[in-house]
Amino acid sequence: MNDLLLRAARLEPIERAPVWFMRQAGRYLPEYRAIREKHSFLEMVRTPELASTVTIQPVELMDVDAAIIFSDILVVPEAMGMQLVFEDGEGPKFPEPIRLYKQIKSLTDKDIVSKLRYVTDAIKLTKEKLNGRVPLIGFSGSPWTLFAYMVEGEGSKDFRYAKQMLYTRKEDAHLLLQKISDAVAQYLIAQIEAGADVVQIFDTWAGVLTPEDFIEFSLGYLIEIVQLVKQHTKRKAPIILFCKGANHSLSEIAMSGCDVISLDWTIDISEAKALLGDSVALQGNLDPAILYTTEEVIEEKVRAIAERMSEPRGHIFNLGHGIAPDVDPHNARVFVKAAKEAYRQKAE
Amino acid sequence: MNDLLLRAARLEPIERAPVWFMRQAGRYLPEYRAIREKHSFLEMVRTPELASTVTIQPVELMDVDAAIIFSDILVVPEAMGMQLVFEDGEGPKFPEPIRLYKQIKSLTDKDIVSKLRYVTDAIKLTKEKLNGRVPLIGFSGSPWTLFAYMVEGEGSKDFRYAKQMLYTRKEDAHLLLQKISDAVAQYLIAQIEAGADVVQIFDTWAGVLTPEDFIEFSLGYLIEIVQLVKQHTKRKAPIILFCKGANHSLSEIAMSGCDVISLDWTIDISEAKALLGDSVALQGNLDPAILYTTEEVIEEKVRAIAERMSEPRGHIFNLGHGIAPDVDPHNARVFVKAAKEAYRQKAE
Repeated sequence: MNDLLLRAARLEPIERAPVWFMRQAGRYLPEYRAIREKHSFLEMVRTPELASTVTIQPVELMDVDAAIIFSDILVVPEAMGMQLVFEDGEGPKFPEPIRLYKQIKSLTDKDIVSKLRYVTDAIKLTKEKLNGRVPLIGFSGSPWTLFAYMVEGEGSKDFRYAKQMLYTRKEDAHLLLQKISDAVAQYLIAQIEAGADVVQIFDTWAGVLTPEDFIEFSLGYLIEIVQLVKQHTKRKAPIILFCKGANHSLSEIAMSGCDVISLDWTIDISEAKALLGDSVALQGNLDPAILYTTEEVIEEKVRAIAERMSEPRGHIFNLGHGIAPDVDPHNARVFVKAAKEAYRQKAE
Repeated sequence: MNDLLLRAARLEPIERAPVWFMRQAGRYLPEYRAIREKHSFLEMVRTPELASTVTIQPVELMDVDAAIIFSDILVVPEAMGMQLVFEDGEGPKFPEPIRLYKQIKSLTDKDIVSKLRYVTDAIKLTKEKLNGRVPLIGFSGSPWTLFAYMVEGEGSKDFRYAKQMLYTRKEDAHLLLQKISDAVAQYLIAQIEAGADVVQIFDTWAGVLTPEDFIEFSLGYLIEIVQLVKQHTKRKAPIILFCKGANHSLSEIAMSGCDVISLDWTIDISEAKALLGDSVALQGNLDPAILYTTEEVIEEKVRAIAERMSEPRGHIFNLGHGIAPDVDPHNARVFVKAAKEAYRQKAE
């Protein structure tokens, strides 16, 4: 097996840094769109055969060093009892957002794993199909990011309702965050038990909180989840935390016990490395907009990251956010190739 | 005159920190909406009598310590030759965004001041009406933020076109940024000559750039503007820089020669103060979403900022971004009152 990702996450010596993309099983691939034309997004998520097919596409088409299971972070709130709607051309929505105490109470963190069996089944099937080629990554949204979606009902610019709950009904907020947290921990444990070699937690909305509130309403729960998952899975699978926009709290994130921190592009990766030392591996950091440019620029920016890291040990190439649907797959391939060659060129 | 803002910007001793809001002359005020119902947004911007009327509204209705001239950052690209369209219910748009070299060449940085005479006239009229009650703040968008609007044609999630130009046609990008920069410098000088007591530069999109690119494509031009404005106005008016999302570069921003740094809410203000010492005054930092909460929470969060600053010297209360249109004016008043009392309570 190509176990570069696992060795990178453990800071073991590696000959080159592995590379994958967030959202790599997605709309930028014509082969994905061909399947998507025949099935709704949620149908694809809920059908292990379809989910595993698109999960493997980028492994074969892009030659990335890891697969990430095709799914969506919002399946967890759905399993907790919320109605989830995906309409074409629009983002996902919860028509009945959580605003009241009785709604929080009515959500469940029980039987999450059985309700999300379609995900663990997709993981098992994907592992079979991958047949050891590359590691498979499982994932979940973070409690805070899921909370924000559940309370807003959809994406938001100002997170008015989510923040209203944090600040005016702190006990309700913590009750809901704790419920989500328990569900996420069970879900990640089940994914690892089903065969996920690595798991990543996406805290996409970390950056809309003050540093103090990030610690209280997001990181506190991430720490709990990391500890629970590690305990219940015998520390088998490395855990990647991606707290977008929370570079103000990198040391605190590193102390969570996670193995890898995934960085957005608003920090120089060499500063993160200097700050965190050997406590965690580092992933990401390339502005996703770079994939809208040219071969030369992509290669130059990838090399710049390798130079800042100085050695492949503890490094995983990735974007600073998900790959955009309108990226030319050729440019994605250029990125993968450049990432694979970056440290080699440097050594020459 | 209530010159608290001027003394705060110069780090002189003050009995309490002044308070104002970004976008305080705006839709959250019923008195503003009453005028807006009868006139288009651009008509209000271009008619000094109307602009000065809404500029003064928050001084009288909210009891803030400064007025900020009612205008829009996009009047500068318009004066440079772009067609600007405001449609109700939508954001502002440039139907013909700048993508080509010949479009950049066709833009002008000449006669900006005469084309924007309606702004300097509005400043003169407002100064008369204010009659020394509070200082008047002039403003402009930063070159990078204006560049992003001009190249995208509207707001953007990924700034695909703006970044494409930065990375694949760097010379064109610098040519355009330099042109905008020259226009902005002239515009700010004219505002100060017309009577603006303070000017603020809004770099709303600073945070979408990597730290390295922020220095090259944004801060470099801000430094140039600060120096030019200071030289040509005999250092008369303090300059406030608001680089939203660029807390990674606070020391560099402070070295620009600006007087005040306006902070978003993703940093603890005491850390900014510890880092920057007496080199600049600090403004802002309150999450604008706090105004969606209650009297108690607003007071608590305002007091927390005062405690972190420890003394009013060098401090200006403000939000970390513009006040939202759906904020209850009562809550805005609670914020102003709390800000005025924050250090007094602390002293007791």
